[in-house]
Amino acid sequence: MKKTKVLILGFGTVGRGVSEALGGNSGFEIAGVASSKGAITEPGALSASELARLASPAKGLSDSPAFKAFDSKNDSLWLCENAEYDALVELAPTNLVDAEPSLSHMKAALSRGKSVVTANKGPIALHYYELKALAGENNALLRFEATVGGAIPVFSAARGLYGDEIQSINGILNGTTNYILSRMESEKLPFNVALKEAQELGYAERDPTSDVEGGDAAAKITILANAIMDLHVHFKDVRKTGISRVTPELIEFALQEKKRVKLIASAFRDEHGVARAEVAPKLVPNENPLSSISGTLNAITLECTLAGPLTFAGKGAGKNPTASAVLNDLAEIGKALENKK
Amino acid sequence: MKKTKVLILGFGTVGRGVSEALGGNSGFEIAGVASSKGAITEPGALSASELARLASPAKGLSDSPAFKAFDSKNDSLWLCENAEYDALVELAPTNLVDAEPSLSHMKAALSRGKSVVTANKGPIALHYYELKALAGENNALLRFEATVGGAIPVFSAARGLYGDEIQSINGILNGTTNYILSRMESEKLPFNVALKEAQELGYAERDPTSDVEGGDAAAKITILANAIMDLHVHFKDVRKTGISRVTPELIEFALQEKKRVKLIASAFRDEHGVARAEVAPKLVPNENPLSSISGTLNAITLECTLAGPLTFAGKGAGKNPTASAVLNDLAEIGKALENKK
Repeated sequence: MKKTKVLILGFGTVGRGVSEALGGNSGFEIAGVASSKGAITEPGALSASELARLASPAKGLSDSPAFKAFDSKNDSLWLCENAEYDALVELAPTNLVDAEPSLSHMKAALSRGKSVVTANKGPIALHYYELKALAGENNALLRFEATVGGAIPVFSAARGLYGDEIQSINGILNGTTNYILSRMESEKLPFNVALKEAQELGYAERDPTSDVEGGDAAAKITILANAIMDLHVHFKDVRKTGISRVTPELIEFALQEKKRVKLIASAFRDEHGVARAEVAPKLVPNENPLSSISGTLNAITLECTLAGPLTFAGKGAGKNPTASAVLNDLAEIGKALENKK
Repeated sequence: MKKTKVLILGFGTVGRGVSEALGGNSGFEIAGVASSKGAITEPGALSASELARLASPAKGLSDSPAFKAFDSKNDSLWLCENAEYDALVELAPTNLVDAEPSLSHMKAALSRGKSVVTANKGPIALHYYELKALAGENNALLRFEATVGGAIPVFSAARGLYGDEIQSINGILNGTTNYILSRMESEKLPFNVALKEAQELGYAERDPTSDVEGGDAAAKITILANAIMDLHVHFKDVRKTGISRVTPELIEFALQEKKRVKLIASAFRDEHGVARAEVAPKLVPNENPLSSISGTLNAITLECTLAGPLTFAGKGAGKNPTASAVLNDLAEIGKALENKK
């Protein structure tokens, strides 16, 4: 079996996890690894042990003698357009305004018939249909399992549901808000105190708006709605209600009713057949599997015509869970390349 | 795309569901449908509408003018050996003593290089390694998603976990006992009363031993242990403790500890590296996704090295959920047949 040649863009937490995992895997060959500042593309410079060294927290790509800083002619986009590889792994930071520079990277790869794997929500939430068409025209694959629910294999499971129909999607897609709600429940904390605790533990950002007001979950439900149900939902149209107005009293009331308060992202067709996506706190009954998803876990329920409700739960983020999802996507691309021959 | 030709053995609840679903699906052609008494193999006699008519509760295969009763020369095994088909769908009743007649059916098909899909636990729990080897030697596929957890796509998810390692499996694999435990908890019923209620509702058999004492769950954890973790577990060696001695007092104690009593089937390697499988009631903490699996739902957690815990939940049985799993398996076989050409 021929090795799949991989170009990795991004050397943050996820990029390091993926580089290490691929470095030790015999099915893949790393054509290059780039950060925003430069790249290593000399094949001999990317042994498994050297990748592990560079991926350790105190190091970076520029600690390699083979590191070349980008200049005006030679940057990450140039690599996408010119390097020799089978699959691009795009792991640059998420940008939900215009999805750049990742969007241009992906388009450059797909236009050349190179498959793309990403953990980056921006391009998929904002430009899914455009990227999907480009992949189709160029006989390439576009995979993005890690963009929603971390390690949870929800997109591959949905692709495997042959002859069934998915009627709706409901999920807990944001670990920060789920952690805050779990702490508000177990410790009877007000929202502000639980948020501060989450910030101190590194589960919430200094500016927590995107998590707390539902923006992150809105991007993820947009991806699920379009990729799984083909609903043609626009990210900016997702109706969002955050958790900042959830009170300990509401949570206590829910518990007495044998329910829990959860920030639920939903996609469905309403009674007029209109595609809808929304994010809002909801009271989830104890007998619903989503009710026990606590802490930073994520979960997604697909309501299917034949199968009924199928729920998938797991770690929603983190270096290793994200690397796991990226590896599974790459392996699928490797198999597809084999079958093409 | 060429249609996959399917031979269906079994026309009980699941066989009817699968026949109806396949009859209406353009990817498949039904080569024949058989019950224990006889078969219909005339292609023209198996239109979608005729299959739907025969599959209705008051009808059966013998209501077709094309039905031929089996005789000493022409029976279901003869069909497996001689009929023209690509995939055998084996849906005869489960037999956990010697797995017959299903085992012989499957061997006959695999020996001819025909792929096999089954919802029947017997042959897979008792003879997995033999059947797997036979499939491999003859370049055929063996698929059994519906044998464990009904519609839950746990085997396909595990196959998709590339480059990850599954360290243990824990599941709620028996809907009858989970229903009884749920009712004991919510209505504070003693075991015998909850069992009687389950029997009246059709969720428990008249002789409930196999469910209540853990035999059914033991067969399913054997299948998971071998097919997902390659543990070489023998069904008869699975240590079983049933739920008949669970008391309302234990359940109440668990609730006060923020736990729930669940019948958990587990597979793992112990501290000496020895493969182990067991079924026993356990106290599951509220923050474990398995704790909220209530009623007749099933759920399975795969503990993975990179991905962490991945939990899959859904309907553990029933006509449509089982048909969904069988269809997914058949679609995978159809794709493999395409790639072979």
